Amino acid sequence: MANPLEATVLVLGEQSEIFLGLLKKHFSTIYQLAHIENKEEFLKDNGAEIIAVATSNNVGMSKEMIDALPKLQIIASFGVGYDSIDVDYAKQRGIQVTNTPNVLNDCVADTAMMLTYAVARQLIQANTYVKKGQWTSSFPLTTSLSKKVCGILGMGNIGEAIAKRAEAAGMEIIYHNRTQKNHVDYQYIATLEELAKQADFLILALPSTGETQHIINANILDKMKPSAYLINIARGSVVDEKALVESLKNRQIAGAGLDVFETEPCTESPLFEMENVVLTPHYASGTHETRLAMAELVCENLIHFFNKEPLVTPL
Amino acid sequence: MANPLEATVLVLGEQSEIFLGLLKKHFSTIYQLAHIENKEEFLKDNGAEIIAVATSNNVGMSKEMIDALPKLQIIASFGVGYDSIDVDYAKQRGIQVTNTPNVLNDCVADTAMMLTYAVARQLIQANTYVKKGQWTSSFPLTTSLSKKVCGILGMGNIGEAIAKRAEAAGMEIIYHNRTQKNHVDYQYIATLEELAKQADFLILALPSTGETQHIINANILDKMKPSAYLINIARGSVVDEKALVESLKNRQIAGAGLDVFETEPCTESPLFEMENVVLTPHYASGTHETRLAMAELVCENLIHFFNKEPLVTPL
Repeated sequence: MANPLEATVLVLGEQSEIFLGLLKKHFSTIYQLAHIENKEEFLKDNGAEIIAVATSNNVGMSKEMIDALPKLQIIASFGVGYDSIDVDYAKQRGIQVTNTPNVLNDCVADTAMMLTYAVARQLIQANTYVKKGQWTSSFPLTTSLSKKVCGILGMGNIGEAIAKRAEAAGMEIIYHNRTQKNHVDYQYIATLEELAKQADFLILALPSTGETQHIINANILDKMKPSAYLINIARGSVVDEKALVESLKNRQIAGAGLDVFETEPCTESPLFEMENVVLTPHYASGTHETRLAMAELVCENLIHFFNKEPLVTPL
Repeated sequence: MANPLEATVLVLGEQSEIFLGLLKKHFSTIYQLAHIENKEEFLKDNGAEIIAVATSNNVGMSKEMIDALPKLQIIASFGVGYDSIDVDYAKQRGIQVTNTPNVLNDCVADTAMMLTYAVARQLIQANTYVKKGQWTSSFPLTTSLSKKVCGILGMGNIGEAIAKRAEAAGMEIIYHNRTQKNHVDYQYIATLEELAKQADFLILALPSTGETQHIINANILDKMKPSAYLINIARGSVVDEKALVESLKNRQIAGAGLDVFETEPCTESPLFEMENVVLTPHYASGTHETRLAMAELVCENLIHFFNKEPLVTPL
């Protein structure tokens, strides 16, 4: 590997060793704002020099933070979502923003599929049943995936990756999206209400925006079949969690598999007591391989920026 | 539905309500041997009349049982495996045997894939972590499936159904089988040793026979990578479970996902204490939809037999 670039990158928040290690390999000066005691003083002294920031979607980048860096030209974010970054304001200021799309599609789609399997086949209960020595009679019958309707909300790259897996499992794929996607063969459903009605498994794979906030609310949950499951690997904000809890309590839907929550980390919830709910700690992209690929993509974007080349994955 | 056929079927063992219900719908006389107090007397009195038996692979049909029924012409078994039925002896006696292949392929392949996901992504631990309120820092990184080598032992119909799902998850498929399958594109590996060496996930999908008994033994486990996982949805007998426990204890392999065990039901095992092991109670085909399809196929075979039509799925 070549010497690091003579360049300064300000890192926001606590970031992983993988990510920090790669940044240090690639760039001569790395400031970690989270580890600087007097942040105000640091920003006053150095803010005017900083042209590049590395952050992640769970840390984000506010308008105030952008304002503290008058010379800022690029925000390179780790993660595919960017709801915590004030992208509009950054663009007004002429600051470029990059994210890390696509490299995490496989892992996120795997997580959606795994949660689908786990709720349908009651994997958590089955494993406990065996490991606690309770397997003396037959375990109750569970639910097949094959021939079931997999309704995907949001047919972006991640939605497509989920569809591919669900199709291989013999499911019938339907989807709703703001616009119909001409390059996919799956049946387009014009409204979310209708998608919710038809789906045996309703899988959320849409971005978090102002418009998608609580898009899954009591009204939509009411439309779902009592035998249907909700799977969310998108963002917690797209589901009205209180309404979901009510719907699960009243057995209006059969269960849920959730990787994301309205408040994260989620350390307290009525969901924790529910047997028909499988929960994971927003770890869909959390594999060694994918996190490394994401960190590499952040660095590539920054390298292209410093070399005055077109960015790899600009927003 | 038409009236039941004027025909007698002897049912062996305890069978599910789904299966018994369907038999009763289709045939005028059903004897459940398990519920007859004096079995010897019953067999002496009625054995000579019985020409059709319904059983399942977990109940089986021994040489002695076959001998008790001198007029027997058909054994219709619920399940795809038939290691517990003395098929050779039945054939010698000119008795036809049927099983229920293919209708369970999807569910069994789903279980293989689910266990693969669960061990790679530490699903059991992740769910516990959230539900116990332990999610305060980041959950440790897990393992991606995409680009990993999925080594399938046994490329029958179930093996193919697994390959299709694993391929959709971006895995590279290789396989070993007694003979190379010309109709599949996956890379054939000439020996099991070599398959074990190369696989990141070694998935067992071969039948239980005299030859496959303990085919996965200490020697094969030794060949596996320390980062590799063993998945068994075939039969417990194909794995030397003691050797597997040793291999897991010594971290010679990374973990295992098992739906089948040497002794079933398995109510005691060192495997129960292992975090990197996911266990399910031989329930791969255990969904409402698939068990009904299996019961229907047993009945269809019997109906064809009584109507002197070719059997649907003879062995």
